[in-house]
Amino acid sequence: MRDMTNPIQYDLLGIGNAIVDVLSMCEERTLTHLGLRKGGMALIDEARAEALYRQMGPATECSGGSAANTVAGLASLGGRAAFIGKVKNDQLGEIFRHDLRSLSVRFDTAAAATGPATARCLIFVTPDAQRTMNTFIGACAGVSEADIDEALIAAAAITYAEGYLWDTPSAKAAIDKALTAARRAKRATALTLSDTFCVERHRDTFIPLVRRTVDILFANEAEICALAQCNTLEDALGTVRGWCPIIAVTRSEKGCIVLSDQDRCEVAAEYVPNVIDTTGAGDLFASGFLYGISRGLTLPECARLGNRCAASIIQQMGARSQQGLATLAAA
Amino acid sequence: MRDMTNPIQYDLLGIGNAIVDVLSMCEERTLTHLGLRKGGMALIDEARAEALYRQMGPATECSGGSAANTVAGLASLGGRAAFIGKVKNDQLGEIFRHDLRSLSVRFDTAAAATGPATARCLIFVTPDAQRTMNTFIGACAGVSEADIDEALIAAAAITYAEGYLWDTPSAKAAIDKALTAARRAKRATALTLSDTFCVERHRDTFIPLVRRTVDILFANEAEICALAQCNTLEDALGTVRGWCPIIAVTRSEKGCIVLSDQDRCEVAAEYVPNVIDTTGAGDLFASGFLYGISRGLTLPECARLGNRCAASIIQQMGARSQQGLATLAAA
Repeated sequence: MRDMTNPIQYDLLGIGNAIVDVLSMCEERTLTHLGLRKGGMALIDEARAEALYRQMGPATECSGGSAANTVAGLASLGGRAAFIGKVKNDQLGEIFRHDLRSLSVRFDTAAAATGPATARCLIFVTPDAQRTMNTFIGACAGVSEADIDEALIAAAAITYAEGYLWDTPSAKAAIDKALTAARRAKRATALTLSDTFCVERHRDTFIPLVRRTVDILFANEAEICALAQCNTLEDALGTVRGWCPIIAVTRSEKGCIVLSDQDRCEVAAEYVPNVIDTTGAGDLFASGFLYGISRGLTLPECARLGNRCAASIIQQMGARSQQGLATLAAA
Repeated sequence: MRDMTNPIQYDLLGIGNAIVDVLSMCEERTLTHLGLRKGGMALIDEARAEALYRQMGPATECSGGSAANTVAGLASLGGRAAFIGKVKNDQLGEIFRHDLRSLSVRFDTAAAATGPATARCLIFVTPDAQRTMNTFIGACAGVSEADIDEALIAAAAITYAEGYLWDTPSAKAAIDKALTAARRAKRATALTLSDTFCVERHRDTFIPLVRRTVDILFANEAEICALAQCNTLEDALGTVRGWCPIIAVTRSEKGCIVLSDQDRCEVAAEYVPNVIDTTGAGDLFASGFLYGISRGLTLPECARLGNRCAASIIQQMGARSQQGLATLAAA
């Protein structure tokens, strides 16, 4: 329920890791040679990041970060958005800040003046368009409760967090504070499970969180199965149904399934003639879905817009739309 | 003539500005609003770079620089290449160095420890795929004669320079030293005229340089007209013919014309169904052309390979091939 004494200024506030992606196309054998788990996200230290980067081919840089991608997508659709996350005051940090602010996203979290550099994610994109991510979390580890502005949270209709945050102790404290503040302000909360290994690491935290605090849950097929500890999607959906008001499960080329207290809908994926890079597909699904929520669309309409945004982002390198998404919202 | 006492280790040594491109798509009206000359390259100071960046939409970063793009393209085709240019020891400088070295390009020029940051080029790409460039030259201005390794030049079959270098006094001294060293070592030299306004600024230097020192000249239609001070391409070609052994003139969708002492050939452009961004088209033409020279191809074959490389690069954002060019050399 919205508290009308404190007006809504933002459709969405995202809290997440502030990362610049470093993307490079590679052959399948490169993953094997470098010992990378295809399709996953691995946390790496700075030494490993430097070693991997030396092995990586020519790359392009593009702002990333799961929740940040979702916020950028929502803003590109025409929504009002804000972001909380930690960069360092270095060149990559300036790039990350620019790429949000240029979409009119409010992003005021102070940059770290000392400590590790702005986070980088080394992304290897194979010919099948699958992305394999290796994240040096860098300055992101410094985000803390002090960065959570409760007035900002109260001004946002939905506070959205990425599961990756639970990998970092001070970020975990920050997101706990943020979600508590959102509940207190009678705002909605949303969570993405991020990655199956992330779910394995934090299942004991995520299950009570989803059952008590989260209003909208995003997951892909593997992640929802990991959360529910089920072998099949239908078993997993049966298990989690009712845990929170809305559960959106993305299924790549099979589209998505949305569960609510009353309904279940399945929406087919958009046709994409040439998939280039799947980085950000789930993040951009969330952009479209949450934009739809902010505009009062029905759940099937929200799912369709989510699918359209996902279909758009996988036709380019990187998870920030080069063309803008405004035409999708109007379609 | 090659001096066989000093073996050739590199097919191409490029000397140019070491720049990271910052690319963003925009509408035509943005160029008007920001006072940008469409299709050109403007030199800007750091304050203007910051102001323009604030006005720019979400961007992607990709290594650039005209001669560096040509060197990267030649290496991607399978050639052996080296580069001389100046970055600062900052994050963008590391990106620039990585993107060359990951193609096995030798790039040993010491990074500046003090002074301005690594150069950036803010590139606005309009819906017609035209690029409008704004370059903050930053650390590039620090390249000097001390960075010219004469042994490296003697080890390269061709030393290739971009016209943009003549805009910076110490770079001009460096390139003079490099071209003199190349002649002394009996190696070939090549020059790209870079930009019509660049030709206007340096015509009095470029004409004697082309007539006395350069073996292979690259220009587009407008640049060769500017150099020759002619209104039509045919007049310009008539004027410059014989100024140097090989003159390759690129004409966008009309392909290219190559003049040699004996011959003139015209080669049609490749068909490109969807042009995304023309950044680097001329640079990549030079990659293919010079790779062909290094493999002993005929001039029409060199021109065809140049056209194929140009056609490839304009189907993506940025001037460094995301897919690699090796298949083009084999075709």
